[in-house]
Amino acid sequence: MKLFVLNSGSSSLKYTLYDIRDGICEIVSGMAERIGEKEGAVTLFHEGKEVVLTHIADHHTALQLVLGQLRGHGYLKSFSDLAGCAHRVVHGGAKFTAPTLIDREVLETIKSLIPLAPLHNPANLEGIKTLIKLSPGTPQIALFDTAFHQSMPEVAYRYALPEAMSLELDIRRYGFHGLSHHYLRDEAAKLLGKETTQSNLITLHLGNGASVTAIKAGKSVDTSMGFTPLEGLVMGTRPGDVDAGILLYLLEEKSLDAAVLDRLLNHESGLKGLCHTNDMREILARKAQGDAKAALAFEIFCYRIRKYIGAYMAILGSVDAVVFAGGIGEHSAEVRERVCAEMSHLGLVLDEVKNRAFTKGAQMVHSPQSKVKIAVVQTDEALQMARESVRLLKEFKKIV
Amino acid sequence: MKLFVLNSGSSSLKYTLYDIRDGICEIVSGMAERIGEKEGAVTLFHEGKEVVLTHIADHHTALQLVLGQLRGHGYLKSFSDLAGCAHRVVHGGAKFTAPTLIDREVLETIKSLIPLAPLHNPANLEGIKTLIKLSPGTPQIALFDTAFHQSMPEVAYRYALPEAMSLELDIRRYGFHGLSHHYLRDEAAKLLGKETTQSNLITLHLGNGASVTAIKAGKSVDTSMGFTPLEGLVMGTRPGDVDAGILLYLLEEKSLDAAVLDRLLNHESGLKGLCHTNDMREILARKAQGDAKAALAFEIFCYRIRKYIGAYMAILGSVDAVVFAGGIGEHSAEVRERVCAEMSHLGLVLDEVKNRAFTKGAQMVHSPQSKVKIAVVQTDEALQMARESVRLLKEFKKIV
Repeated sequence: MKLFVLNSGSSSLKYTLYDIRDGICEIVSGMAERIGEKEGAVTLFHEGKEVVLTHIADHHTALQLVLGQLRGHGYLKSFSDLAGCAHRVVHGGAKFTAPTLIDREVLETIKSLIPLAPLHNPANLEGIKTLIKLSPGTPQIALFDTAFHQSMPEVAYRYALPEAMSLELDIRRYGFHGLSHHYLRDEAAKLLGKETTQSNLITLHLGNGASVTAIKAGKSVDTSMGFTPLEGLVMGTRPGDVDAGILLYLLEEKSLDAAVLDRLLNHESGLKGLCHTNDMREILARKAQGDAKAALAFEIFCYRIRKYIGAYMAILGSVDAVVFAGGIGEHSAEVRERVCAEMSHLGLVLDEVKNRAFTKGAQMVHSPQSKVKIAVVQTDEALQMARESVRLLKEFKKIV
Repeated sequence: MKLFVLNSGSSSLKYTLYDIRDGICEIVSGMAERIGEKEGAVTLFHEGKEVVLTHIADHHTALQLVLGQLRGHGYLKSFSDLAGCAHRVVHGGAKFTAPTLIDREVLETIKSLIPLAPLHNPANLEGIKTLIKLSPGTPQIALFDTAFHQSMPEVAYRYALPEAMSLELDIRRYGFHGLSHHYLRDEAAKLLGKETTQSNLITLHLGNGASVTAIKAGKSVDTSMGFTPLEGLVMGTRPGDVDAGILLYLLEEKSLDAAVLDRLLNHESGLKGLCHTNDMREILARKAQGDAKAALAFEIFCYRIRKYIGAYMAILGSVDAVVFAGGIGEHSAEVRERVCAEMSHLGLVLDEVKNRAFTKGAQMVHSPQSKVKIAVVQTDEALQMARESVRLLKEFKKIV
C-alpha cells in the first residue's frame, strides 16, 4: 500500500511516494519544474537523480510524466494503485482544523478561500483536480498549512481592527507553516521524552519563509505569520513586521500603487532588501569578509527572532524547548549561536560544540546549565503529511 | 524668570507657565480649544478653572487671548518677559536628537519633515511662528517627541525593506512619546536610587496613544511606535501591530483606497474597533457587567503589552524595572494587574495592595519577591520639556 504526497505549486510540483503498509517508509521522491515554460524538467531522486528535460504543458502532463518515471523503475504502476493521495493546501481558513478527505464540498471551500491565498490555493487545487481525474477512486486528502494554528485563542488571532470588518472579511491571524510546526512539536516532544500535550515549545521554521510558533500543552497558541505569510520574522524577500503607516505613507505621499507595494513587500524586502541576496550562506560568507550590509542583515534577522522568543516566553509561562528548523535553522550554526548568545538571562545557553556538530535528524544542542532546552530538528513536511494522512485513512477504515 | 511650555495642535493648544528662577515650579496652566470654529474656549486652570467662550480665529488670536488671561491675573505681563518658550514638535526625524534652539534653519528642517507627520508638524510650526511674532527676542526651543529614541541602534530602527527605499525616503523606526519615556526614565531611576546611565527599564506609556520603550543603560534602544505612531501596542483608535498583507488584501481584493485605509487605521481601529469605545474606564465597567466584547478588547490590550515586555526583556538582558504610565497606565490598576498576572516566570510579581493604592506621583508597586521592580509614574511631558529647556538655556548662557 502506497501513499502519494504532493505539493503542487503554480509552475512546479514536488512529491514523495511512501510505503505505508508497516509504518511509513519513503520509497522515492521527485519533482516537475517549469510547467508551462518552453522546456521543463521532471526529476526522480533515485540513485543520484534522473532528469528528463521536455516541454510540460500543464499539471496533468506533469503528473503523467512523473508516473512514467515511477513506472519505468517499478515504483508505481498506476495512480489507481495508491491507497491515498495527500495534497498540501496553503490556506484552509478558519474552517479546516485537521486533515480532510476531499469531496465536492471541500473543493468548493478551498476554492472559496482563493482570495486569501491568490497565489497558492489555485495551484494546490490544480494538483488535486488532476489527481482526481487520473485516479478517480483514490481517497484524496487535503492537508492545510493553516490547520495546526486554528487552536489559537481569540486574544492571539484577532487584530485590533474594526470588529465588523474582521468578521465580515474573515480578517484574523491564520498562521502558516503549520505542517512544519506540527512536525517539530512531535519530534521535540520525542527528544524531551514528554507527551506532546505536556510540551511547551517555541518552534522556529527558518527558511526563505520564516515563522515562529508558541506551543502550549501541545497546541499552537500564537504564531508570527498572520492573515498572510508577510507578517513576523524577517524572511528571504519579505520584511516581516512592518509599520502599516509606512504603506499609508507610500500610497498617500509617494503615490505608489497596490501592485508596486505588493511586489515590494513580497519579493524585494527581507534579507534581499537589506543586502541584495536572500541566500543566508552568501550572507554569512560576505559577513566573514567584513561586508557591513551582510552583517547588518544577519543581525536584524537574529534580533527579530530573539524578540519573538522573548514575547512567546512571556505568554507561555514555562518553556521546555526552543526548536530550530528550516533551511537556515538546520544549516546555520552561526544563526543559532547569535540568537542564543545573549539569552542566558531567559534560560537559554547553547553548547557551542554540539551546535556546530549538528548535521541532520533531531538533536539537543543546549549546554547542561540551560534551563530551556534547545533543539535542532530537520523538518519534514511531506512526512508530516504522510503521518496525518495515514491516521485519517485508518480512521475512515480506508486501509487496515 | 519664566518659561512658557506650549503644545500646539491644529485646533487647540495647551500650555504651562513655569517659574525657573530656582528649580522649576509650575505657576499656572491652561488651554485654547476649537480654534477656527464658531465658538472656541480659552481656559485657565486657576482656583478651579476660568473659561472664556469666544470665537478664536487662529493660533495668533488664541495666544493673545491666553496672554490676556495670564495678564489679568498677574501671571505674565508680556510674552517678551519670558526667559524662553518651549515648543513640542512631534517629528524631528533622525536629525534632531536633543532640544534645539530654533533659528531659520531649524524652522526649515521642521517644515521639511511635514510629510512624515502631516497632521502634527504644521500645527507645531504654527505655534512656533506665532510666538516668534509675539515675542521676537525670546529664545524659542523645540523639543521633539522623536529625539529620545534616536539612540536606537540600526538593528532596531531599520525595517527589512529595500535598502535604497529606506535610505532615500528616510523610512526607519523613529519612535514617539519620547518626552514621556525620557521623563519616565528619570523618575524611575530616582525611585531605583540609580544613575540613569545604570538603569535598564521597560517604560509603558499607555494613553489613547500607547507605546513601550526598551531602555538600556539609560538610552532608548527600541520602541514600539515606528515610522509612524501606528505601530506597536493596541491604542484607543489605532491597531498597533498588524499584518501589512491585510492592507494589500484590502487594496487589491476589496478595492479600498488609501484615504479609507488611513481613516480605518488611524481612527476606527484599536480598542474602539474591538468594542466600540476607546475609553478604558467604560471598557472596564462593561467588562465587569459581563460584556464579552469589552472583555476581549481588555484582554488583547494587555496580551500585546505582555508580548512586548517579553520581547524587550530578551534584548535588554537584565531589567531593573517595568514602568507604567499614561492615562491608562496610571489610572487602571486592573490593567497593571492583568499585564503582570502571568509574568512571574519572567520575574514580575505585583503587590496587589500597593497596586490598588496608587493614586499619584511615582511609586513602586511590586511585591518583595519580584526580581524585576514595577513602578507606576505619573508622567509629565510639560515638566520634561521645561527641564530640558532650562538645561539648554543654561548651556547657552541665556539665563544664569
